[in-house]
Amino acid sequence: SKYEYVKNFEQDDRLLPNTWLVLRVDGRAFHKFSPAHKFCKPNDVRALNLMNAAAIACMKEFSDIVLAYGESDEFSFVFRKETKLFQRRNSKIVTAVVSYFTAVYVMEWNKHMLIKAPPKSQVQVLLDKNKTSSSPSLEPGTHNKPKDNTIDNPDQQAQDDGDPAPLLYPPQFDGRIVCYPSLQNLRDYLTWRQVDCHINNLYNTTFWSLILLGGLTETEAEEKLKTTLSKDKNEILFSGFSINYNLEPAMFRKGSTIIRKPVEKTITKMSPKR
Amino acid sequence: SKYEYVKNFEQDDRLLPNTWLVLRVDGRAFHKFSPAHKFCKPNDVRALNLMNAAAIACMKEFSDIVLAYGESDEFSFVFRKETKLFQRRNSKIVTAVVSYFTAVYVMEWNKHMLIKAPPKSQVQVLLDKNKTSSSPSLEPGTHNKPKDNTIDNPDQQAQDDGDPAPLLYPPQFDGRIVCYPSLQNLRDYLTWRQVDCHINNLYNTTFWSLILLGGLTETEAEEKLKTTLSKDKNEILFSGFSINYNLEPAMFRKGSTIIRKPVEKTITKMSPKR
Amino acid sequence: SKYEYVKNFEQDDRLLPNTWLVLRVDGRAFHKFSPAHKFCKPNDVRALNLMNAAAIACMKEFSDIVLAYGESDEFSFVFRKETKLFQRRNSKIVTAVVSYFTAVYVMEWNKHMLIKAPPKSQVQVLLDKNKTSSSPSLEPGTHNKPKDNTIDNPDQQAQDDGDPAPLLYPPQFDGRIVCYPSLQNLRDYLTWRQVDCHINNLYNTTFWSLILLGGLTETEAEEKLKTTLSKDKNEILFSGFSINYNLEPAMFRKGSTIIRKPVEKTITKMSPKR
Amino acid sequence: SKYEYVKNFEQDDRLLPNTWLVLRVDGRAFHKFSPAHKFCKPNDVRALNLMNAAAIACMKEFSDIVLAYGESDEFSFVFRKETKLFQRRNSKIVTAVVSYFTAVYVMEWNKHMLIKAPPKSQVQVLLDKNKTSSSPSLEPGTHNKPKDNTIDNPDQQAQDDGDPAPLLYPPQFDGRIVCYPSLQNLRDYLTWRQVDCHINNLYNTTFWSLILLGGLTETEAEEKLKTTLSKDKNEILFSGFSINYNLEPAMFRKGSTIIRKPVEKTITKMSPKR
Ligand SMILES: Nc1nc2c(ncn2[C@H]2C[C@H](O)[C@@H](COP(=O)(O)OP(=O)(O)OP(=O)(O)O)O2)c(=O)[nH]1
Ligand SMILES: Nc1nc2c(ncn2[C@H]2C[C@H](O)[C@@H](COP(=O)(O)OP(=O)(O)OP(=O)(O)O)O2)c(=O)[nH]1
Ligand SMILES: Nc1nc2c(ncn2[C@H]2C[C@H](O)[C@@H](COP(=O)(O)OP(=O)(O)OP(=O)(O)O)O2)c(=O)[nH]1
Ligand SMILES: Nc1nc2c(ncn2[C@H]2C[C@H](O)[C@@H](COP(=O)(O)OP(=O)(O)OP(=O)(O)O)O2)c(=O)[nH]1
Ligand SMILES: O=P(O)(O)OP(=O)(O)OP(=O)(O)O
Ligand SMILES: O=P(O)(O)OP(=O)(O)OP(=O)(O)O
Ligand SMILES: O=P(O)(O)OP(=O)(O)OP(=O)(O)O
Ligand SMILES: O=P(O)(O)OP(=O)(O)OP(=O)(O)O
Ligand SMILES: [Mg+2]
Ligand SMILES: [Mg+2]
Ligand SMILES: [Mg+2]
Ligand SMILES: [Mg+2]
Ligand SMILES: [Mg+2]
Ligand SMILES: [Mg+2]
Ligand SMILES: [Mg+2]
Ligand SMILES: [Mg+2]
Ligand SMILES: [Mg+2]
Ligand SMILES: [Mg+2]
Ligand SMILES: [Mg+2]
Ligand SMILES: [Mg+2]
Repeated sequence: SKYEYVKNFEQDDRLLPNTWLVLRVDGRAFHKFSPAHKFCKPNDVRALNLMNAAAIACMKEFSDIVLAYGESDEFSFVFRKETKLFQRRNSKIVTAVVSYFTAVYVMEWNKHMLIKAPPKSQVQVLLDKNKTSSSPSLEPGTHNKPKDNTIDNPDQQAQDDGDPAPLLYPPQFDGRIVCYPSLQNLRDYLTWRQVDCHINNLYNTTFWSLILLGGLTETEAEEKLKTTLSKDKNEILFSGFSINYNLEPAMFRKGSTIIRKPVEKTITKMSPKR
Repeated sequence: SKYEYVKNFEQDDRLLPNTWLVLRVDGRAFHKFSPAHKFCKPNDVRALNLMNAAAIACMKEFSDIVLAYGESDEFSFVFRKETKLFQRRNSKIVTAVVSYFTAVYVMEWNKHMLIKAPPKSQVQVLLDKNKTSSSPSLEPGTHNKPKDNTIDNPDQQAQDDGDPAPLLYPPQFDGRIVCYPSLQNLRDYLTWRQVDCHINNLYNTTFWSLILLGGLTETEAEEKLKTTLSKDKNEILFSGFSINYNLEPAMFRKGSTIIRKPVEKTITKMSPKR
Repeated sequence: SKYEYVKNFEQDDRLLPNTWLVLRVDGRAFHKFSPAHKFCKPNDVRALNLMNAAAIACMKEFSDIVLAYGESDEFSFVFRKETKLFQRRNSKIVTAVVSYFTAVYVMEWNKHMLIKAPPKSQVQVLLDKNKTSSSPSLEPGTHNKPKDNTIDNPDQQAQDDGDPAPLLYPPQFDGRIVCYPSLQNLRDYLTWRQVDCHINNLYNTTFWSLILLGGLTETEAEEKLKTTLSKDKNEILFSGFSINYNLEPAMFRKGSTIIRKPVEKTITKMSPKR
Repeated sequence: SKYEYVKNFEQDDRLLPNTWLVLRVDGRAFHKFSPAHKFCKPNDVRALNLMNAAAIACMKEFSDIVLAYGESDEFSFVFRKETKLFQRRNSKIVTAVVSYFTAVYVMEWNKHMLIKAPPKSQVQVLLDKNKTSSSPSLEPGTHNKPKDNTIDNPDQQAQDDGDPAPLLYPPQFDGRIVCYPSLQNLRDYLTWRQVDCHINNLYNTTFWSLILLGGLTETEAEEKLKTTLSKDKNEILFSGFSINYNLEPAMFRKGSTIIRKPVEKTITKMSPKR
């Protein structure tokens, strides 16, 4: 029809050939989504498992993904350099994967989240112990006492966190694709994300220890951690709460890596092609 | 860290200012998804309502969408020219909307689809009548008789279509954004989609009439319609099955348009700004 | 051949249809090129005429340019919204125009520059008068006396500026294309450039008056002008040197605008086309 | 000013880091420019030298170009992978180089072109010999005799070609940049251009032999060569005109490669940086 000309306004967005395509999805506003759904602090093993399940489903659906790396509310998918998926059209690839990831996340929510989260972080383990013990032995002093207001009551928080929670509203993930020309760049990308995981997780573990176990307010905890280095945080955890950060679950400390297993295939070459 | 340099490989994909952004989402491989989920033919009012529900949710979530138009497995969202959403970053906008759309589609599936679809198309109405009547009056002749195999048994198909169906696997939507500089271009875009709706719906209505009511095979129906114009299809419907195409539900013939209601607001201007 | 695959690495860079394409060329490092070629200060009418000549040649060569606006070392070309030049491919258009502009600039150099520049700015007129007059009446005082060093000798400079100068090394112009969706945007673009012309020209006229006529060093002139507004500069010119800025040549104050004359054409329409 | 907003309409066009940037310039409509300027057939050594001179100037001006390859009316420039020239902004790089190339081409025209071209191709050598010899020994037969019309008179053409010719109108070069991620891609690119050079040059040498030495018209020559392979062309050259293609000058057969010489530098590293 005479209206079809509007299709010409679409831009061709094919990505550079012979580069690794790295697609990262990241939950939108999960600083609100996590507490709204009673995610355990500092890490919710159910939520991470749900992310992993969505990522595995994507790898099954999109066979050109060779590796996926996830942490917190994000997942990175590495497509093999030669991928011809959707002719390497940026919008098509990124939306198809984000859409599929979201669909699985929602569909598998109940399976993963409608259970009580088992305490995996030492923070949670100690918190559980404290709650059942008669004397709150780890409460260091008056100035650190949990403030007794309804808005910021760590005890209440601690009780709720990890409780089964139905999906209250639609989650949202953004996505982007970045091209990496060399294997070194790709490795550096993955290291970048894993360093991010480590930094954030060490911070969060210390932050929530100070609050949930130490009775600090969020503002106080933030203040205390402001100028600390990694070793200081390790020290706070150990001397303050007898938490050995290195004993935290590997998935929390290092994130999740999913690799496609190479399979043996017998190929009968028909005609010589380049 | 020294790995952060990889972030510089991200391309800036901000869209041209002062243009309407039209984002179209479209179900992936719905030629398989629809029959797998027993969508009514030629149109499933429940499925369309579900699409509309997802679109309305998107309009509520993204306040810069001023209009949405949907048909079949697609929806187009028009963002106002001035939108600053995500600084007009292409990937961010398209993935956020597609992700949200998908999430709502999945979350609201049961509410919309776990019911028996009411017959809305005259094709379905007649089919229901035929099934309960003793003599299949509309079967024109032997050569058109429904083939009695399980794979392509229209009677069976007709029974299943519209039955409540749980979500069997994660749906997937692609998305793209196109910039339109002028109001005329925008109007032509919407007309383009509506013409597409009309053409496809007239075709599908005739196609499925020939099969479900006329007993033709899909190949036969396709063959018969190959060279027909609109008026021929209207004629086939009317003389063959007493179906007046213009009496088909407007939503089927014209698609669904959702408009944001303008609200009155009193703005007290503080300082003159351009 | 088997090597042709490398052509697929080219990106499609077609520009959004139905937008005005504005291509701006700008001389590279003309803060060095101008003095090296003894451009008159603050404006060299020969150099501007050469720019105009190159721009006119471009308009003759590229018939879809409807308007050009030039000032200083830059020229902006406006292509009509409907242009199909090189299928609107960005690189092709921008390089073709920049290349042609450069070629004409070099080819016509001698014709325009191998003459003594006539004094057009009042600064030059006064300077010429002073040089021939016996007593340097405008030398305000000792502290403002022209410094007697070879590097920054205004008198010498004043003598050289405007002298015929052969092209010493290849000039270079950069170029870029910007899409503008609305006529208002296009107008604002042109106003933006013209405001830039005005601001710079008023500054330069005052700056060089202070140096060439007032005997200040460049540093002193810069310092004196640092906090001044437009009216202050007008005042300095008028009270200091009896220069009425509004009497400066229009081409200096407002830049050069070249418009393609619309011609009457009788078109015999053959077939109705949209 | 309030008009500056129009600057935001510029798109960020930075090219992917860590890839070789290959910039190819190509003369526009040189099928007309060459005969208009009496370029020798099949190759004009002066014109090629002029191209080479422009390319060398570019390599001197843009220090990140590591290699250049030229043939016919085109030149490819390879920028090192790490180049930060203009922050890798596509438009800036491509226009600067094209502009500079054009400027040098025009400026050095007279130096290279205002001489009589020495016969370098065997086609020209033989043609010169024939013209001075009394009997045209290489004229194969009546049907191949040079047609005696003014429009397409090979003899006249042959006389003019290679004569000193002033620059009649401004030349024009287009340019484009392509990113190549791997060394293999880069090598394949260069091979692609060199294969193009070989194919075209063998064709042109045979084509012009048939016309200039064999007396065929252009149409006849085209017809004769239509289905020929490389070896057929070699055969035509050798048996028809005693031309051994492999003895054609290397610059004609293989193009021109310019490499930046690596220099030894002592770098005293001050601080460890990545
Ligand atoms: N409690 C808890 N919170 C988590 C967990 N995983 C992620 N989160 C939260 C912590 C962060 O607030 C947030 C992820 O940080 P982001 O930088 O992605 O920020 P956010 O998603 O809020 O904003 P964005 O839309 O991505 O810019 O999600 C978890 O396992 N447990
Ligand atoms: N039975 C039935 N089918 C529908 C309905 N709405 C959409 N469909 C089907 C008809 C088409 O096969 C399909 C939409 O056509 P598309 O051009 O989008 O193709 P499809 O989604 O298969 O492929 P794609 O991934 O979009 O390229 O969805 C409906 O209400 N009822
Ligand atoms: N004396 C004199 N100088 C002029 C004239 N026209 C332009 N210029 C000089 C003044 C400025 O230094 C320069 C133009 O400013 P730009 O902002 O384009 O800077 P420039 O070309 O040096 O650097 P760029 O490579 O464009 O970033 O050219 C003229 O007529 N007379
Ligand atoms: N006689 C002669 N012609 C040459 C020489 N070098 C290049 N040419 C001509 C032969 C071709 O017609 C033309 C180069 O071919 P192109 O594919 O670049 O075509 P052209 O420049 O005409 O069109 P374009 O604007 O690049 O699409 O230049 C030469 O040394 N001698
Ligand atoms: O979202 P952030 O702040 O973690 O960092 P980013 O994802 O690089 O930023 P953006 O989502 O705005 O691209
Ligand atoms: O998907 P189609 O075939 O209806 O048409 P399209 O959406 O324009 O094609 P694509 O999805 O490949 O962009
Ligand atoms: O060159 P400038 O500084 O006058 O400003 P610009 O042209 O917008 O900057 P750039 O040439 O770097 O695009
Ligand atoms: O110009 P051609 O035909 O030799 O081939 P190309 O340079 O790849 O084509 P274009 O100049 O249109 O990009
Ligand atoms: Mg983010
Ligand atoms: Mg997030
Ligand atoms: Mg995150
Ligand atoms: Mg599609
Ligand atoms: Mg679809
Ligand atoms: Mg569709
Ligand atoms: Mg600039
Ligand atoms: Mg400049
Ligand atoms: Mg300038
Ligand atoms: Mg070309
Ligand atoms: Mg060419
Ligand atoms: Mg060429």
